[in-house]
Amino acid sequence: MLRLTLDMDDVLANTHEKLVNIVLSDFSTTLNKEDFEKKGLRELLHPKQLSRLHKIMDTPGFFADIEVKEGAIETVSKLSSYYNIFVATACMEFPTSFNDKFAWLRKHFPFIPWTNIVFCGYKSIIHSDYLIDDHVRNLHAFDGQGILFTAPHNLRETAYKRVSTWSDVSELFLHIV
Amino acid sequence: MLRLTLDMDDVLANTHEKLVNIVLSDFSTTLNKEDFEKKGLRELLHPKQLSRLHKIMDTPGFFADIEVKEGAIETVSKLSSYYNIFVATACMEFPTSFNDKFAWLRKHFPFIPWTNIVFCGYKSIIHSDYLIDDHVRNLHAFDGQGILFTAPHNLRETAYKRVSTWSDVSELFLHIV
Repeated sequence: MLRLTLDMDDVLANTHEKLVNIVLSDFSTTLNKEDFEKKGLRELLHPKQLSRLHKIMDTPGFFADIEVKEGAIETVSKLSSYYNIFVATACMEFPTSFNDKFAWLRKHFPFIPWTNIVFCGYKSIIHSDYLIDDHVRNLHAFDGQGILFTAPHNLRETAYKRVSTWSDVSELFLHIV
Repeated sequence: MLRLTLDMDDVLANTHEKLVNIVLSDFSTTLNKEDFEKKGLRELLHPKQLSRLHKIMDTPGFFADIEVKEGAIETVSKLSSYYNIFVATACMEFPTSFNDKFAWLRKHFPFIPWTNIVFCGYKSIIHSDYLIDDHVRNLHAFDGQGILFTAPHNLRETAYKRVSTWSDVSELFLHIV
């Protein structure tokens, strides 16, 4: 069975949306929701705002209640009949997120065995046939075939095959098998 | 730079010793320290005792104060000049151990960057040139060259190159480069 590895933030989980909602409701900003659909947070926010956001992300509970991306559960469930599904999420930057992320995955994706969950820093350590990720730096470090999941911070990237929704993922990977 | 991945329990950390001390002091048993040097815990203890030990391991704090194996810090520090060092530890079985294990590694091996720490279930997901591990099942699942670190539960294994101390590791890996 081919191995398909999925990133968590902004692939399975709508982390960007939660961050944008926090910025719009709690930060003093003239930016609006549409601005955040066109560019990444790093491009739009001041360093002090980014640092404030970083602290919020490093608070226990932040990753516990993030929304699942539309169609992710159904598609991953379907794909798990044809692929050996792994989840690889970089959470060493936020050590407080371990428990929240693990609980989140067990809750929303109980059909992915715990043996197939990986918490790592660099994705270069992942040995898999495919990796779906929203960060070009992760795909670049990865040895197999990388697929870019569309996010505001990667709209101008052209080096990787791109998917924008879980319906795209379904079509691409059910077509391969 | 070649990549060398190290297991944590019974490779960097003397987890077996802590478990044996708990059994000898808190469990009612006729076994002595020498018995635990010849066979693994799974072979020596009753299922009920194993289950009790499992519960103790799943308590926050258990992994926080384990002794570092003799020579591990000096050797890993030396090897990190010649190899890209990663640590891969299976802790999804004990989700409460995330924070303790991460803090333990940061405390004793601060020169291993957090980007190179991996928490995983199956070691088959690790993409590395070498893996040093005390479990044959992990080496078997691994794609690169596996090295077995001697532990009471693997004394009869013959399928892998074996190291028994960090001095052995030093000799083997400084000889390769």
